[in-house]
Amino acid sequence: MELDLPRRALALLLALAGLASTSTVAQPSDPLPSWRDGATKSRLVAFVQAVTEPGGKDYVPSADRVAVFDNDGTLWAEQPMYFQLAFAIDRAKALVAKNPELAKLPALKAAAVGDTRALVATGEKGIAQLLAVTHANMTSDEFALIVRDWTRTARHPTLKRPYTQLTYTPMRELLDYLRASGFKTYIVSGGGVEFLRVIAEELYGVPPEQVVGSSIKTRYELRNGQPVIVRLPEVDFIDDKAGKPVGIHKFIGKRPIAAFGNSDGDFEMLEWTTSATGARLGVLVHHDDAAREFAYDRTSQVGRLVRGLDEGPARGWTVVSVKDDWKVVFAPMP
Amino acid sequence: MELDLPRRALALLLALAGLASTSTVAQPSDPLPSWRDGATKSRLVAFVQAVTEPGGKDYVPSADRVAVFDNDGTLWAEQPMYFQLAFAIDRAKALVAKNPELAKLPALKAAAVGDTRALVATGEKGIAQLLAVTHANMTSDEFALIVRDWTRTARHPTLKRPYTQLTYTPMRELLDYLRASGFKTYIVSGGGVEFLRVIAEELYGVPPEQVVGSSIKTRYELRNGQPVIVRLPEVDFIDDKAGKPVGIHKFIGKRPIAAFGNSDGDFEMLEWTTSATGARLGVLVHHDDAAREFAYDRTSQVGRLVRGLDEGPARGWTVVSVKDDWKVVFAPMP
Repeated sequence: MELDLPRRALALLLALAGLASTSTVAQPSDPLPSWRDGATKSRLVAFVQAVTEPGGKDYVPSADRVAVFDNDGTLWAEQPMYFQLAFAIDRAKALVAKNPELAKLPALKAAAVGDTRALVATGEKGIAQLLAVTHANMTSDEFALIVRDWTRTARHPTLKRPYTQLTYTPMRELLDYLRASGFKTYIVSGGGVEFLRVIAEELYGVPPEQVVGSSIKTRYELRNGQPVIVRLPEVDFIDDKAGKPVGIHKFIGKRPIAAFGNSDGDFEMLEWTTSATGARLGVLVHHDDAAREFAYDRTSQVGRLVRGLDEGPARGWTVVSVKDDWKVVFAPMP
Repeated sequence: MELDLPRRALALLLALAGLASTSTVAQPSDPLPSWRDGATKSRLVAFVQAVTEPGGKDYVPSADRVAVFDNDGTLWAEQPMYFQLAFAIDRAKALVAKNPELAKLPALKAAAVGDTRALVATGEKGIAQLLAVTHANMTSDEFALIVRDWTRTARHPTLKRPYTQLTYTPMRELLDYLRASGFKTYIVSGGGVEFLRVIAEELYGVPPEQVVGSSIKTRYELRNGQPVIVRLPEVDFIDDKAGKPVGIHKFIGKRPIAAFGNSDGDFEMLEWTTSATGARLGVLVHHDDAAREFAYDRTSQVGRLVRGLDEGPARGWTVVSVKDDWKVVFAPMP
């Protein structure tokens, strides 16, 4: 309702007329229309202008304009639980309905009845069981189909929308703005890389090769003479906390100049990004808007943010207030 | 000496005149001047034309034009030993000279005196020792500096050139041709990813984020308050044989439509690439030219090629004869 409708209508008309190719049309005067004018927005724009101004003291060549984004809580919502956990629970329900024997596994039993408290109580071993049954022992192609199917049908429990319509409009604008400014945008998520790759292009314009995430091991094998990649019930890499700079180094091989997160799981990624010399941008989204989405930080089980709030400002990081800095949170339902 | 000088001179003049930007100048009539006209070259060009022709039955959108290249023996030479092994031996010599205690390790002792037979005899344990001492226990930045320094000074033992001048000119043309045709070109090497990333952009125009390779584990830590990535003496991933499709899936997340290799270590990568439906290209470089570089295949310790020769043609793979298909092998010394 607060959406800038005239601008959107204009963009649509230009697109229909075949005039909106990024190479031929000048950028709109406001590249971030869903952000309220103020200190936060000014800092974002000033950073982009500084690193893109030819001959400027902070100029960075396009090849080195690497921006990394956390996903859960940064690009889309993450309450009341990570969406991929909701996927695992829905999947467990479907599998137990087909094969009641699976309910002998405590984690599967808890998931099948939607008892997240009991599920959490099964601990690491239980979560590994849930992961093995819902995420492994199938080919990567089969997994991708299951994820795609789930995103088409599942609905968020309180916001009553498909999860794919819970991306943050201001952050999607930021992705577009950075790309239009010669940045390469990556997702660096604690979530599963194969889960995210199914949807990242559609949701964020980020192709599979620019998604870094946690992974399980896989194996190449022939089935009926045809090669497949099989997902194994064994953790390969956890892309969280100090694992995020490790993942960035491993998959991208370049040090980012801009990093966006929302929890202490992103602390090391922002630290790694902003400790180098030259203009650097570290941004934390602070969820303080219970009216439009969720308010949580220091005591939340999901997306806990303590150290970032305490140390971020002194480190020069920008803390975004959802309540004050964003005109809109989600796009209107189509 | 067999180089097509007039064409190169013309390209240079166009470049100097600012006219050679890929977006404004039509492609030269022959995109592969170092390849002899014949069946091999025709197949390469026909494939590229088929997947890029809008409306054609084999058309592939640019986002899915993924081409993967092995490095050792495919993009640069690999005899008499992998160049990264030569690097490790040179590094061992330098380290033992500084710290003679290191020669108590059998592998380091063998490497320091250049006795590759004794080095091989130390087995997996010995190679792990050599790797730990020459490739690990330092930061990634330190390692990159050492690699860069080595590439500036080291010379190939028989060809008497810097290793960086032992890239295959026809293959570099192929990389350029594919990129000009909307492909994204990746290196998928059994060699170390951090070794290759230091030089891949300069040698092949392939940026760090498009290099997939074997890796050791790393750890993020603070040293004197500054974050660093530390290389650990522990194998993380071996990007060879069935590991190649696994690495492609893990790092790229898309199935390639073209794959280039030269040994049975590339077999599964070509199999994975060419087993899908639609136009697919599998290419093996067969080293049969002892006069201009090296001739080896079925019995070689390095780059052994047996299964590819036996099964490749029936699988529709193109086998390149260095002797017959390449006008030039290496660029002339500058």
